[in-house]
Amino acid sequence: LRIGLLVEYDGTAYAGWQRQKNALSIQQVLEECVEGLTGRTVGVVGSGRTDAGVHGFGQVAHFDDQSSIPPERFAYAMNSRLPQDIKIVRSGQVGPEFHARFSAKRKTYRYAICNSLQGKAIGRQYFFHVPAKLDEGAMQETAALYLGKQDFAAFMAQGSPVSSTVREVYASRVWRAGEDVFFEVCANGFLYNMVRIMAGTLIRAGLHKTGPSEVAAVLAGKARREAGFTAPPQGLALLWVDYGYDIFL
Amino acid sequence: LRIGLLVEYDGTAYAGWQRQKNALSIQQVLEECVEGLTGRTVGVVGSGRTDAGVHGFGQVAHFDDQSSIPPERFAYAMNSRLPQDIKIVRSGQVGPEFHARFSAKRKTYRYAICNSLQGKAIGRQYFFHVPAKLDEGAMQETAALYLGKQDFAAFMAQGSPVSSTVREVYASRVWRAGEDVFFEVCANGFLYNMVRIMAGTLIRAGLHKTGPSEVAAVLAGKARREAGFTAPPQGLALLWVDYGYDIFL
Repeated sequence: LRIGLLVEYDGTAYAGWQRQKNALSIQQVLEECVEGLTGRTVGVVGSGRTDAGVHGFGQVAHFDDQSSIPPERFAYAMNSRLPQDIKIVRSGQVGPEFHARFSAKRKTYRYAICNSLQGKAIGRQYFFHVPAKLDEGAMQETAALYLGKQDFAAFMAQGSPVSSTVREVYASRVWRAGEDVFFEVCANGFLYNMVRIMAGTLIRAGLHKTGPSEVAAVLAGKARREAGFTAPPQGLALLWVDYGYDIFL
Repeated sequence: LRIGLLVEYDGTAYAGWQRQKNALSIQQVLEECVEGLTGRTVGVVGSGRTDAGVHGFGQVAHFDDQSSIPPERFAYAMNSRLPQDIKIVRSGQVGPEFHARFSAKRKTYRYAICNSLQGKAIGRQYFFHVPAKLDEGAMQETAALYLGKQDFAAFMAQGSPVSSTVREVYASRVWRAGEDVFFEVCANGFLYNMVRIMAGTLIRAGLHKTGPSEVAAVLAGKARREAGFTAPPQGLALLWVDYGYDIFL
């Protein structure tokens, strides 16, 4: 049976989603957890990688299981073995054709900024601290430029191998809640570091170090070095992955 | 000059507010920080103690200073030296008669419960996880019993020396936000562990293990062993301290 997982994690302590040799990843922890339960080697496939330090509110993953554990019981069984910073929100059977990565239609990320002078003590793990006052109106104007089907080559970490750098952005908005500023973006896919470069560019716009016309030129010119800096990982969270239907059977 | 501080801290890593011999406290970190800036020994007085693991959103403290540092600059100067889990939100001169503890008129605490089956990965440091479904209606009914001027002897850790166990509760409410349940209480003062015992009693009420009539009897009978358990510290935060006026001159 193919089993789907809805996963929440605090990425602070991990080297990212993807399994790697010399550092602990979310994927490795999940695979070892399933292996401990079923006694068989397993590959847990996520909807996409998240970088070291990035959080997951609604990451989706799947694996193939031959045990007799009821699909919906994996959540409970895994949570009793997982560390406190990884939780299975739900598990269940998915269709045999379902693929956490290739079936994904849209993903939504949120970038969280603490815009007070002193920063946060409580919740500091989940915000990037920008002490200088951000003009959220300027950020909103710039965020609107991300909308639509465009070539985001300028918003990709250099040297990432990818066949196409065109992505379609369905929603891109910025709002302030007191001293917190949020950027939420939904697209059919994201290039490597794309959301963090988008966020870095918006922060520069909010500090009036760049403006909508420069950002439009960067998008048109496709040169990475012209875009904003890559905002740090702790402000970023994968909110949810949309497959166009309820993945659980 | 007497200097007032508005302090935010994540209590996870500390043995509580009060200075002690073999463990690190918020008070010690603040005193050493001021001493590093001014070169003189200082006593930082808080509005009250918070237990190990309890958080402070709006703790208030004061100290007496003879340096030439402008009072409102202490916030900035201290934040550049403090660890990330303690922030000075504001500093400034207060009146010579102001005392963070003795001048306090009302304090407000919030207790945060995560009431999902699996618990939280993100923000787990700030919630107590109760997996069984809580009936917030029953909790609201019970919370209302805390209101008014009453003897809270049953809601105090045993063996605490105190001249009077009468306190006046001005506000006591419970609400649910999705899978989170909050209890907020405002009073003219709190006995040792009082909010955590109130929260533990509310949780028992929410699980239908006790009811309003039993809790009313506990309040009347004043016997600690009859009240609920002491809910764990990480769900608790001191929200703010009210002095009846703006403390900063």
